[in-house]
Amino acid sequence: MDLAAAAAARDATDPLAGYRDRFSIPDPDLVYLDGNSLGPLPRRTRTAIAETVDREWAGGLVRSWDRWLDLGTRAGALLAPLIGARHDEVALSDQTSVNLYKLAEAAVGADPSRPDIVTDVDNFPSDRYILDGVARRHGGRLRDVPADPTVDDVAAAVDERVGLVSLSLVNYRSGALADLKGITALAHDAGARVLWDLSHAAGVVPVDLAGVEADLAVGCTYKYLNGGPGSPAFLYVRRDLQGALTQPIAGWWGHDDMFGFEPGYRPAPDIRRFLTGTAPIVSMVGAAEGIALCADAGIEAIWAKSQSMTSWFIELAHEHLAALDFEVATPTGAGRRGGHVALRHDAAWPIVQALRDRDVIVDFRHPGIVRYGFSPLYNRYHDVAAAIEVTADVVASGSYRTYPDLPAAVT
Amino acid sequence: MDLAAAAAARDATDPLAGYRDRFSIPDPDLVYLDGNSLGPLPRRTRTAIAETVDREWAGGLVRSWDRWLDLGTRAGALLAPLIGARHDEVALSDQTSVNLYKLAEAAVGADPSRPDIVTDVDNFPSDRYILDGVARRHGGRLRDVPADPTVDDVAAAVDERVGLVSLSLVNYRSGALADLKGITALAHDAGARVLWDLSHAAGVVPVDLAGVEADLAVGCTYKYLNGGPGSPAFLYVRRDLQGALTQPIAGWWGHDDMFGFEPGYRPAPDIRRFLTGTAPIVSMVGAAEGIALCADAGIEAIWAKSQSMTSWFIELAHEHLAALDFEVATPTGAGRRGGHVALRHDAAWPIVQALRDRDVIVDFRHPGIVRYGFSPLYNRYHDVAAAIEVTADVVASGSYRTYPDLPAAVT
Repeated sequence: MDLAAAAAARDATDPLAGYRDRFSIPDPDLVYLDGNSLGPLPRRTRTAIAETVDREWAGGLVRSWDRWLDLGTRAGALLAPLIGARHDEVALSDQTSVNLYKLAEAAVGADPSRPDIVTDVDNFPSDRYILDGVARRHGGRLRDVPADPTVDDVAAAVDERVGLVSLSLVNYRSGALADLKGITALAHDAGARVLWDLSHAAGVVPVDLAGVEADLAVGCTYKYLNGGPGSPAFLYVRRDLQGALTQPIAGWWGHDDMFGFEPGYRPAPDIRRFLTGTAPIVSMVGAAEGIALCADAGIEAIWAKSQSMTSWFIELAHEHLAALDFEVATPTGAGRRGGHVALRHDAAWPIVQALRDRDVIVDFRHPGIVRYGFSPLYNRYHDVAAAIEVTADVVASGSYRTYPDLPAAVT
Repeated sequence: MDLAAAAAARDATDPLAGYRDRFSIPDPDLVYLDGNSLGPLPRRTRTAIAETVDREWAGGLVRSWDRWLDLGTRAGALLAPLIGARHDEVALSDQTSVNLYKLAEAAVGADPSRPDIVTDVDNFPSDRYILDGVARRHGGRLRDVPADPTVDDVAAAVDERVGLVSLSLVNYRSGALADLKGITALAHDAGARVLWDLSHAAGVVPVDLAGVEADLAVGCTYKYLNGGPGSPAFLYVRRDLQGALTQPIAGWWGHDDMFGFEPGYRPAPDIRRFLTGTAPIVSMVGAAEGIALCADAGIEAIWAKSQSMTSWFIELAHEHLAALDFEVATPTGAGRRGGHVALRHDAAWPIVQALRDRDVIVDFRHPGIVRYGFSPLYNRYHDVAAAIEVTADVVASGSYRTYPDLPAAVT
């Protein structure tokens, strides 16, 4: 097969093609399809971090806190339109797991009669662990719904003991896109809150949190938002809930007058009450820059290219990889999938290793999933074509068989 | 007064004098005495952060997680000897407030019959807010002891309902150094655990956590450890307690097999069980470099110079500042104070502003405290002398009176 010409034609008319130059890509031949694990370095971020270190930290010393103190809420305001939130409903703080914990505790703690939490069996493990712990501590339990749940699946699990439904908007393995509006409405009808994990959605899927009146959300900034390794996470709390919910980690950054050093905790009336302690500024500058770059391109343009890339990839996978025992594990309908595509294959682990050695960086997810993540700001249609061609070659040639099987530690 | 000659003589024989060149100090004339709020940039940290961003993030992309994954425990092992812990008893993770919450919850949650927590009225407000929240959630309450408590003060507050005593080893305002050994032993005798906040001690005061069999500790890395703004905090859990205590934020980084993606949470048997989620790597590299620099100099040498500097400062303050209505608010006996000295003055706020404009960077703490922080790795005896001379001048000359009074927001 030769898909180069078809890819080149698509790249030539790609309105986002120019954004690739905004990133530091180590090798023009690298086909990096793991940006939904760690996005690459935006060039401006290198400069911004150097300025933060040299000018603000080294030069300004403690005086620079004047400009750092509200970085988390400023970056949150910049992120807000990308996820359909109002400017004062989002802040960067802590890590995703910590934010999920804070908001789940806040929601479940608000109504002792509803200690149970609904999630799906295939939600990201960290989310499951945390939600299970929160439910148990309040005398409830985690209720599982099937992977990639429908509104009906959730409806069957929610009753008057359920205080919270918490799902990932895009499944980290299958790439399935949940029904944000339908599930939120269903939960509200049943008297429960909804907490969305947007980690695999933010920066690629347009999310309409305020439009559907979602209660709570969290997500990371190092995938499609390209914030850098472990850059701080975000949290969203709908405006009218901010004063009503109390999170358990009563740190000074959540106090209404953090430098007043009052003897008692008096939480801020706004989104700041969900903050905890001193934010890791250098990493947070990376998050802020990554968010700014996405905001500059616009989420609708990013999403249009994302759907175009994944549609073509799925089409080519059916055409060229089905005969090599690959199966598309991602829902294929429009509006049913996020920004990555999962292919199932019995030899997924050695195939991922073989692809990486051929400069096609993809990820493995248990069991038997090769995960191709397409990030519209820097991925080219060339990458789509190359991923198909190299995948077909390592399997058809049998070269993947020279790679060891799955190590026991990654089961 | 002319203290220059006396300072120069001391600087000439200072065995740590060479370490100042390891830092990027923006101006040789700057007298920076706020390193216990934010330490300056070590030169190697600039390089290390640039390499992390350029070579590891931009170049290695997701593959660099191989070297980042255990950075928090490696940096913890490097920090361990500075605080008297064993190498596998310390890890970097989250922020101080979050770590305090995790460990306080773990300790109090372990014994429902002891929900009360003892702390002192002048502990750092964030600690007080968090401890109060933890105690209340378990049906207990916060019990206050006086500021800079003695063993007897603590003894009077501990009974069979107290599960935890949590104090700062060095008070953030007064600089008083608590009796680590005596209070730990007293609490143990009474059946309670002890959780020390080492934020104002780590990197300047030698701490003997293992020697006194302290249970738990937390602390920040951006003061005397010079990790950079908001660099991740550390936590310490005594080895034999690690398997016995469970922290509430059940994130995947605390799972025994974090990439196994098991359906249920199975906490690691070791210090990793107190981790939560993906660490902010760029900020953590700063913490690791700062810790390495302290470890290189050695905590005993740092402490010797610290005591020498603060002794001289206190002596000069009595001599030159007492007549200007300053009062030394820090305990003056050896073994009674940490690395900073607090002077009380009714006009502390405008004095701090006037000093900053004269390139003497100190901090204000309510009520009426001018806080002088001496960090032996870069501060000179010259800085001690200059702080006294400039402080005397702005008060004697009345120049501080041109600065506005305390704004209402900082009460």
